[in-house]
This record gives sequence, structure tokens and C-alpha cells, in this order.
Amino acid sequence: MKTTATFYHAGCPVCVAAEQNLANALDPSRYNVEVVHLGEKKSRVQEAEAAGVQSVPALVLDGAVFHINFGAGLEALK
Amino acid sequence: MKTTATFYHAGCPVCVAAEQNLANALDPSRYNVEVVHLGEKKSRVQEAEAAGVQSVPALVLDGAVFHINFGAGLEALK
Repeated sequence: MKTTATFYHAGCPVCVAAEQNLANALDPSRYNVEVVHLGEKKSRVQEAEAAGVQSVPALVLDGAVFHINFGAGLEALK
Repeated sequence: MKTTATFYHAGCPVCVAAEQNLANALDPSRYNVEVVHLGEKKSRVQEAEAAGVQSVPALVLDGAVFHINFGAGLEALK
């Protein structure tokens, strides 16, 4: 049975592509990945907080919250 | 073709199981997941640094480093 893994982010333009790569690397036979832009869907902030999300980007997977810190490469800023 | 995703950690007893769940959630048809305990394999610290790892736990995936901050649930400490 598939479970839903939820990736919460706030649209950081440099980081979001790389971070979505992490979400997309999850096994599609086990996880439905939902990507939620909390800046655009403020109605879901409360849900994210209830799941334990303290900062974005974060991935909620099997009930555990992983706060992800992707140090953007300077190449992306050139 | 599979690529190798490397999960570096230092054996935090509360966190490591949950963090390995993240590594194990990756798509096995696309990724070989290697788990490296840097506390036990200090010879690989230099390799991790070269890949951009600044703290553990971290996941190196497709050349990008994701520093993962798992806030351990208090339940694990009871």
C-alpha cells in the first residue's frame, strides 16, 4: 500500500529544484509524493505544524519530519 | 542506470533509525543507497567533505548534498 510523503516548501527559487529532486527520488511504488508550497497554500500551514514541521523545506515521511537544509551551490547564483 | 546515494551519519542512537528510513525510501530501481557511519569510518570523512557535507546526517544524491535535521520525538526517549 502506498503512503503519502509530503514535501513542504516555500518556493526558494535556488533551492526548490534540488529539493524536489530529493522528493522525486523516493520510491514511487511505495510513496505518493505531494509537494506543497506553503507560501501559496497558507491554509495548509496549520496541517504542517500539526505534523511537526518547524521550518521549510521539510519532508514528512511515515509520520516522521525531516527538516532539509540544502546549501545552494554558488553556481546557481552566477 | 543506477546511481549511488550516500547517507553519512555518526550513529546518533535516537535519530539514526528514522534517518535510515529516509535513505531506504529512495527508489531502489534508481539508487543504490550506501550508508556510511563516519564515526566508525573516519577514513571517509575527507571524501564526505569533498562532496560538500558540512554536518551529519547528510544525504548525497545526484551530486547535491542534503543536510537532514530530524528532530527526534520525545517518545523515543521515554
